[in-house]
Amino acid sequence: MVKQLTVAVVGATGAVGTKMLEQLEKRKFPIGKLKLLASKRSAGNTLEYAGQSYTIEEATPEAFERVDVALFSAGGSVSKALAPEAAKRGAVVIDNTSAFRMDPEVPLVVPEVNRADIKTHNGIIANPNCSTIQMVVALEPIRQTFGLKNVIVSTYQAVSGSGVSAIEELHTQSLAWDEGKNVEAAILPVKGDKKHFPIARNVLPQIDVFTDNGFTYEEMKMINETKKIMHMNELPVAATCVRVPVVAGHSESVFIEVEQAGVTVEQLREALTGAPGVIVQDDIANQQYPMPLFAEGQDETFVGRIRKDLSNDKGFHLWVVADNLLKGAALNSIQIAEVMVEDGLL
Amino acid sequence: MVKQLTVAVVGATGAVGTKMLEQLEKRKFPIGKLKLLASKRSAGNTLEYAGQSYTIEEATPEAFERVDVALFSAGGSVSKALAPEAAKRGAVVIDNTSAFRMDPEVPLVVPEVNRADIKTHNGIIANPNCSTIQMVVALEPIRQTFGLKNVIVSTYQAVSGSGVSAIEELHTQSLAWDEGKNVEAAILPVKGDKKHFPIARNVLPQIDVFTDNGFTYEEMKMINETKKIMHMNELPVAATCVRVPVVAGHSESVFIEVEQAGVTVEQLREALTGAPGVIVQDDIANQQYPMPLFAEGQDETFVGRIRKDLSNDKGFHLWVVADNLLKGAALNSIQIAEVMVEDGLL
Repeated sequence: MVKQLTVAVVGATGAVGTKMLEQLEKRKFPIGKLKLLASKRSAGNTLEYAGQSYTIEEATPEAFERVDVALFSAGGSVSKALAPEAAKRGAVVIDNTSAFRMDPEVPLVVPEVNRADIKTHNGIIANPNCSTIQMVVALEPIRQTFGLKNVIVSTYQAVSGSGVSAIEELHTQSLAWDEGKNVEAAILPVKGDKKHFPIARNVLPQIDVFTDNGFTYEEMKMINETKKIMHMNELPVAATCVRVPVVAGHSESVFIEVEQAGVTVEQLREALTGAPGVIVQDDIANQQYPMPLFAEGQDETFVGRIRKDLSNDKGFHLWVVADNLLKGAALNSIQIAEVMVEDGLL
Repeated sequence: MVKQLTVAVVGATGAVGTKMLEQLEKRKFPIGKLKLLASKRSAGNTLEYAGQSYTIEEATPEAFERVDVALFSAGGSVSKALAPEAAKRGAVVIDNTSAFRMDPEVPLVVPEVNRADIKTHNGIIANPNCSTIQMVVALEPIRQTFGLKNVIVSTYQAVSGSGVSAIEELHTQSLAWDEGKNVEAAILPVKGDKKHFPIARNVLPQIDVFTDNGFTYEEMKMINETKKIMHMNELPVAATCVRVPVVAGHSESVFIEVEQAGVTVEQLREALTGAPGVIVQDDIANQQYPMPLFAEGQDETFVGRIRKDLSNDKGFHLWVVADNLLKGAALNSIQIAEVMVEDGLL
């Protein structure tokens, strides 16, 4: 009989937290006891899980006593304050924020790519950035078969990556546009940054705030996290991250160079076909290729538009799409917990 | 006194044709006589130009007698049939379709880049593809100053590039989405292709139909036209062309490698600042960068997010935005005619 676990979800009412609860139920995660934790403000409210009502408790250090797994998705500051407290009390933290991702003591895990890294954890395991996860799922089978020596990605990211308020903003702006009213912006590109621009009928070449080198934090996350997850510190990775008026599903135009010479498109497609978590959608004669609208609600990472560069024998182009709230966030967190159960680590 | 010219506009009721008439009027092109030509079906209808009503005539070979400049934007098949007839009768054809762009006898012109090529014309001058024009406007000052040895672009293209019906489709689908109704697709990604997919809340990694090498015609246009315009047949160029739910304004995430080593971001920005047709919008401390919503109606090509690659000393990333119906189509055509007037070629 599978051991029944005490699971805490921190930030259960957010865009990702909601999906975490959906996934725990759908995937029949062995929950003995479920604790929903949030800020003092939300404590006392109730949420449904598996047909039962749960009262949200305040996330205090003591709330993590006797918790086996704590899934965090309530922002970096909450994770920074409480994840170490949870870990100290014996919980395994799976943290969906960027708080610990680049901490050398914290494994950053996509089960299809670096499942073995989980074993090195000291109480906290980090879930990578949404746009990173789907890219490494697609790159890993290629790296394994042909080697990998360069990655340049441009993203087309959905607003749900910025949370519930950004989804509402897209809908409100879209309605205003349709009714010929003034389109007002208060959330995107970055809640809390100085300026806001409309996302409806627009694209925003800024996700997260800027760093000193001219790249945004989102771009630096893709660059640094990819190297860490793939254990390739020397891999050149470049990213341009762009928000598009899509509700759910991140798309990525990825240029790669492989190590091996003379690889054909057919060989590359074959390496991806049947790879863990990957579905190849690449039949241009029938206009089959991945699109975010159709990836929404799906667990897999979809890869298409696979073609060989016309000037560079080792260069290939891919189009990679996944549901950013599922594989990009909630699902990957639950999958980490699942493989820990499988491997007897929980 | 400037010579007054007889100007014919073929396809005056289309998305680009409408903009051509606007630009001719706004820029005070020296029109002595204006002829609006279209298919037999549209002949007899009237259009306004500069406060005067014009009756649309049928575009026949004879309609081009005594025409000085014929601006074509009525689809490739119309250009193929009638542009040679117009040229035979002494008109200079400026053709906005892809019909003659790669014809070695036909100059393919962006005035900021290869104005001198106009002189070699034999009656037909081609206007490049929208997504190509804005990219070469941004690349030419860089090439002149530092050399250029690699280009990899991913585009974020507006629906107006597919004409009036695609704009209507985006609005209709968006309204259906707002009202919770079924979203139906009949135009995009390509009118006349087998399948159609929604563009509202989606992105489509197909513009134009596919070629045998896995690239679309749109992608091959960017690749081949860039080489031709810049006179760099050996330049490696790769493109991934994607439609986004934006009405007007194409955006491009462009990776380039320059020839010269040790170039700084400041030097690159300086080379672009004040370059013909370019406006640098690149002040990340104040969240200033190009966006399609704000490029609409503007003549210039906007360049921002200029940054140096973190792994490649000769690599740079740019974000390039322009109004696809203006600089990408109608305006560039009129600018070709204007420089011909300036150079005494008309």
